Amino acid sequence: MENQMRENASKAKAASVLLANVPTASKDKALLAMADALEKNKSVIMQANKKDLEEAAAMLENKKMTTALYDRLKLSDSKFKDMVSGIRDVAKLEDPVGKTMSALVLDDGLTLYQICCPIGVIGVIFEARPDVVPQVMSLCLKSGNATIFKGGSEAKYSNRALFDILVEAINTVPDIPAGAFQLAQSREDVAEMLKMDPYIDLLIPRGSNEFVKYIQDNTRISVLGHTSGICHAYVSESADLQTAYAVCLDSKIQYPAACNSIETLLVNDKIAEKFLPEMCRTYQENGVELRFDEKSYQIAEKNGGVNGGVNGGVNGGITLKKATDADWDTEYNDLILSVKVVGSAAEAIEHINKHGSHHTDVILSTDQKEIDKFAGLVDSASVMINASTRFADGFRYGKGAEVGISTNKIHSRGPVGMEGLMIYKYILSGSGHLVKDYAGDKAKPYLHKKTQEKYCRLQ
Amino acid sequence: MENQMRENASKAKAASVLLANVPTASKDKALLAMADALEKNKSVIMQANKKDLEEAAAMLENKKMTTALYDRLKLSDSKFKDMVSGIRDVAKLEDPVGKTMSALVLDDGLTLYQICCPIGVIGVIFEARPDVVPQVMSLCLKSGNATIFKGGSEAKYSNRALFDILVEAINTVPDIPAGAFQLAQSREDVAEMLKMDPYIDLLIPRGSNEFVKYIQDNTRISVLGHTSGICHAYVSESADLQTAYAVCLDSKIQYPAACNSIETLLVNDKIAEKFLPEMCRTYQENGVELRFDEKSYQIAEKNGGVNGGVNGGVNGGITLKKATDADWDTEYNDLILSVKVVGSAAEAIEHINKHGSHHTDVILSTDQKEIDKFAGLVDSASVMINASTRFADGFRYGKGAEVGISTNKIHSRGPVGMEGLMIYKYILSGSGHLVKDYAGDKAKPYLHKKTQEKYCRLQ
Repeated sequence: MENQMRENASKAKAASVLLANVPTASKDKALLAMADALEKNKSVIMQANKKDLEEAAAMLENKKMTTALYDRLKLSDSKFKDMVSGIRDVAKLEDPVGKTMSALVLDDGLTLYQICCPIGVIGVIFEARPDVVPQVMSLCLKSGNATIFKGGSEAKYSNRALFDILVEAINTVPDIPAGAFQLAQSREDVAEMLKMDPYIDLLIPRGSNEFVKYIQDNTRISVLGHTSGICHAYVSESADLQTAYAVCLDSKIQYPAACNSIETLLVNDKIAEKFLPEMCRTYQENGVELRFDEKSYQIAEKNGGVNGGVNGGVNGGITLKKATDADWDTEYNDLILSVKVVGSAAEAIEHINKHGSHHTDVILSTDQKEIDKFAGLVDSASVMINASTRFADGFRYGKGAEVGISTNKIHSRGPVGMEGLMIYKYILSGSGHLVKDYAGDKAKPYLHKKTQEKYCRLQ
Repeated sequence: MENQMRENASKAKAASVLLANVPTASKDKALLAMADALEKNKSVIMQANKKDLEEAAAMLENKKMTTALYDRLKLSDSKFKDMVSGIRDVAKLEDPVGKTMSALVLDDGLTLYQICCPIGVIGVIFEARPDVVPQVMSLCLKSGNATIFKGGSEAKYSNRALFDILVEAINTVPDIPAGAFQLAQSREDVAEMLKMDPYIDLLIPRGSNEFVKYIQDNTRISVLGHTSGICHAYVSESADLQTAYAVCLDSKIQYPAACNSIETLLVNDKIAEKFLPEMCRTYQENGVELRFDEKSYQIAEKNGGVNGGVNGGVNGGITLKKATDADWDTEYNDLILSVKVVGSAAEAIEHINKHGSHHTDVILSTDQKEIDKFAGLVDSASVMINASTRFADGFRYGKGAEVGISTNKIHSRGPVGMEGLMIYKYILSGSGHLVKDYAGDKAKPYLHKKTQEKYCRLQ
């Protein structure tokens, strides 16, 4: 097993060097062939997905699978359409490979170019969702990265069908090196992949928090991803109330299972009495369970809160429930929200930096100075100003598609598109320039003059 | 011990949020105060360095320290001058913090800004060289990063004196948060630092290969650095011979202990007979021991090579010594060079990608097509074209100063300046924009229109 994985990873590494130099036209040709092949083989793929769904249905019945996972596994017609159009969209994206990012004249005839290039070999470990295969394969192909996929066993038929059809389509373009894309399927393959640090340059795990944490804890390879999404809304005393009601609601209920939904509502105490009662009633009308800190509990109680009542309260009253310390560090991924009254923006910022997961947080405010303070001091990948946290997403951020959302503070942060699959190399072009001439007592000085010149690679 | 480190690291983390938002003028004021303080306290620092050198001299005598390490420990007058002017140079560098890297209009009134910001807390672990303290502290301060230094015990007096004087100078500027810079001194502190992944965002180890490898293997924190520097020169059949002689010599002997010096010379067999004899004689005249593969050995032998003779050979002949398999994977860091004849540029590229450390490699060639192939396919941080590998250095690359050289393929590659200490955050500014309006059947489309607008933070 380890030998097989090592052989495949080493093949991918060798292919990656060649893939990094494939002309744009050939990559785009392969992408269009991929999209066409999916359309042509739709019935084969749907048949394979049906086999996965049949096995999953039995697991669902035995409670060995959640409905959410089953839904992610299922390839609907609309998901299929999105997969195909997604590949064609990537063909339209600009090729990042070979771009000159900067150029500097060190001395006459000695020019330093910083050139954008692929990272090398990407390992993608994912659960359920078979649509990850075409999405990530197209982004990796366009960005010149070889890829090893490890899909979950629950999607084994779907992943295999998709992978084989896509790779066959890619192979019709002779420029693309063989072995650039690999699919691993068995459970043991994950552990083996984590050891492949000589070959795999970056791991992208997509799945549950526990799954991502396991990966991070068990490999020397760099990991791009995020474990939890503990996001906050802070409502300032200067907030426009209607904006605050709408944004706080959308940030929670538009898709509560998403990592960019809020888990905690922080309200400035100067506005809490005015803002909270209606906000709480709106949340509860939308099925959101609220967990209050001491101060917000008192406000809710004063405004017709009913202790221990059912959600929605009695006669429009607010159902009362106290938050525990654990609530501030919990990602519910569900229609639950903790509520806290804070004395100032500074206290909100401190709470967010301490309890949040540095993912996405929003301020509701009309005070520009306070907004800038919040945007500057909140240490998160995305800071929203009077806009829903749910916008934190690769497609919405205009990246075409996303390879994941990162809470890393190295390389890529927040929603990550193709740019997260790129690095650079320096090319220094001279005509016999020696360091000894620029060292010692009679050292020639460096010019260090910026230039717009590009390094043109031959294609 | 662990509690102390945890407390310091947590203080640095808290300070980092504030430091990220200190205005440029205050940071520059602190930098100039640092430079002035060093000048004013030169005698105190030199006295401390003398104490370190006295202890080191005893270790040198007992062979518990190398001469190279002793030299790195010693603060000469010229090193001192460089330290001071280095800080003033950093004050002149543009402040990267808060720059708008890109901006995109998602919809009317909804603009996404990508803002450059500090990584957070940097851990710097280094041996001997006390001049690392002012160099790294100035780069971290200017880039808004809190820093925890862990210096080697051999430089304990120098590091402590430098650190205290510099931090006192910084503290004269009230904007700079207390606790942003920390110095750890004991051996146990290294192990403790490696566990501080909740607080430290990036580790930069500077020292021997074994030292860096130990760090990489024992922490979950991202590490920026390099272990070995196995660099190559490839001489093509189209090479200009005079250029090749000079560049290959400079790449080896200008400073053989540096990581960017070449360890292996690869020569195309079409030019080997013509090129190698004179090249080998020049190397040996400069004290370089050569280790030949089979083909180069034969060529050297035909051209007056003397088996087993002393370096420099007899009557200008070439001293013959065969390379073993291990030579191709060895970083000599010394006046030793392995020599191999290859059949093509492709074979050279394959050798480099297999045996090299992806650091710096040079091609000597006048064939543009071959040069582009080499630059494209050699998977190294720096590819030199007819120029010495010794140019791969932060100062020479125009970065002002360098925090290290990275062979990572994530975040930063090659010589790393202040840009390697930066990441970004997204700020999305709206006026009550909700995701629900952009989802479902009646979804509003996104504009995704690039804009030159900047996000201006208040200072």
